[in-house]
Amino acid sequence: MPPSFVDPSACVIAPGGAMTGATGAKRTRIRDLAGLFADEAAFAALAAAEGEAIAYAVDEFRPARVAPQELIFGTSTLEPGRVGDEFFMTRGHIHVKSDRPEIYFCQAGRGLMHMELPSGETRPLEMIPGTVVYVPPYWIHRSVNTGTAPLVTFFCYPADAGQDYDIIARAGGMATLIVADGDGWREAPNPRYRKRDAAEVARYAEDPA
Amino acid sequence: MPPSFVDPSACVIAPGGAMTGATGAKRTRIRDLAGLFADEAAFAALAAAEGEAIAYAVDEFRPARVAPQELIFGTSTLEPGRVGDEFFMTRGHIHVKSDRPEIYFCQAGRGLMHMELPSGETRPLEMIPGTVVYVPPYWIHRSVNTGTAPLVTFFCYPADAGQDYDIIARAGGMATLIVADGDGWREAPNPRYRKRDAAEVARYAEDPA
Repeated sequence: MPPSFVDPSACVIAPGGAMTGATGAKRTRIRDLAGLFADEAAFAALAAAEGEAIAYAVDEFRPARVAPQELIFGTSTLEPGRVGDEFFMTRGHIHVKSDRPEIYFCQAGRGLMHMELPSGETRPLEMIPGTVVYVPPYWIHRSVNTGTAPLVTFFCYPADAGQDYDIIARAGGMATLIVADGDGWREAPNPRYRKRDAAEVARYAEDPA
Repeated sequence: MPPSFVDPSACVIAPGGAMTGATGAKRTRIRDLAGLFADEAAFAALAAAEGEAIAYAVDEFRPARVAPQELIFGTSTLEPGRVGDEFFMTRGHIHVKSDRPEIYFCQAGRGLMHMELPSGETRPLEMIPGTVVYVPPYWIHRSVNTGTAPLVTFFCYPADAGQDYDIIARAGGMATLIVADGDGWREAPNPRYRKRDAAEVARYAEDPA
């Protein structure tokens, strides 16, 4: 077999989200989420008590030779919890190649894929096991765990997409917060949000808003 | 919102494999599988008795505007059964853009992703619920149900991949058959297989075998 051919391979996803056969893993601890939550005092108290605890874990499979047409897939396991009124969430990102989409297939737990266009329009979509969320090109996206058990999702995206994790922080967060509302959730305006100007929005889209 | 932005959307996959929110569906009946199985008499008898029965069903989601960097995903539900010694299987394909990969995430049942390079090397990988098979560029692939319940897989591939469904038929089948062996399965040489010549192999690969 010429070296240009890559061998097929298989990974196995356990119910808890761990993936054997993964080529990489990333663990994000509670202390790593500094700045994400509106209630800074509540975050400080949580970080002091449980800062080393894992907030979310990602196991991923990258093909042996990453070419533009390749796919990366894996699992994300986001623990349940709250910081003030806000639910635990991932840092979130837009793709560096912002026209690359992504899919998230919920395996366990309950939560949201919270999405936002650079122009500030938001779209939270609920996920329960069996839900597949299609994140179209140009949408910023993060997972939010609105339940009481780990939120496990399977993801897949084009290998050349890349992640810009700072886009949300640069704007003071997403335009809306996801906060507890009785047994459920609701969107609330984010008081720290700074709307992107037209020039910045244009940089993220082929057709500027 | 400018028309260049596509709305996020969600599909829901039922345990049996049906996907709500799909943009398309395809049903392949037993009679459609004429020519796939080595035991032609057994197939003729089955087709006469149950030719209209569905052998496999595909529900798929295609984004509203299919661009090269987009993703298509969906479910494949392959019924259990045998034709002579061979298990029910899908027609199989190589991608028209043969360097496009695909992933298959087993949801229910038991089976194989049977893969073959155009040069004839085969690689059957077992799937049970939780298994994710990565089909690398250049590999022909088909699903085989070696169990007694429907084999349900979730698939995702680059939207510009395309499917060449005739590659297998043109060679008289895949190089190996998947046949029953006690309670399990084994590969057996396919007596009808005609090895592709170097020129044809070269057409499927950037680096000819």
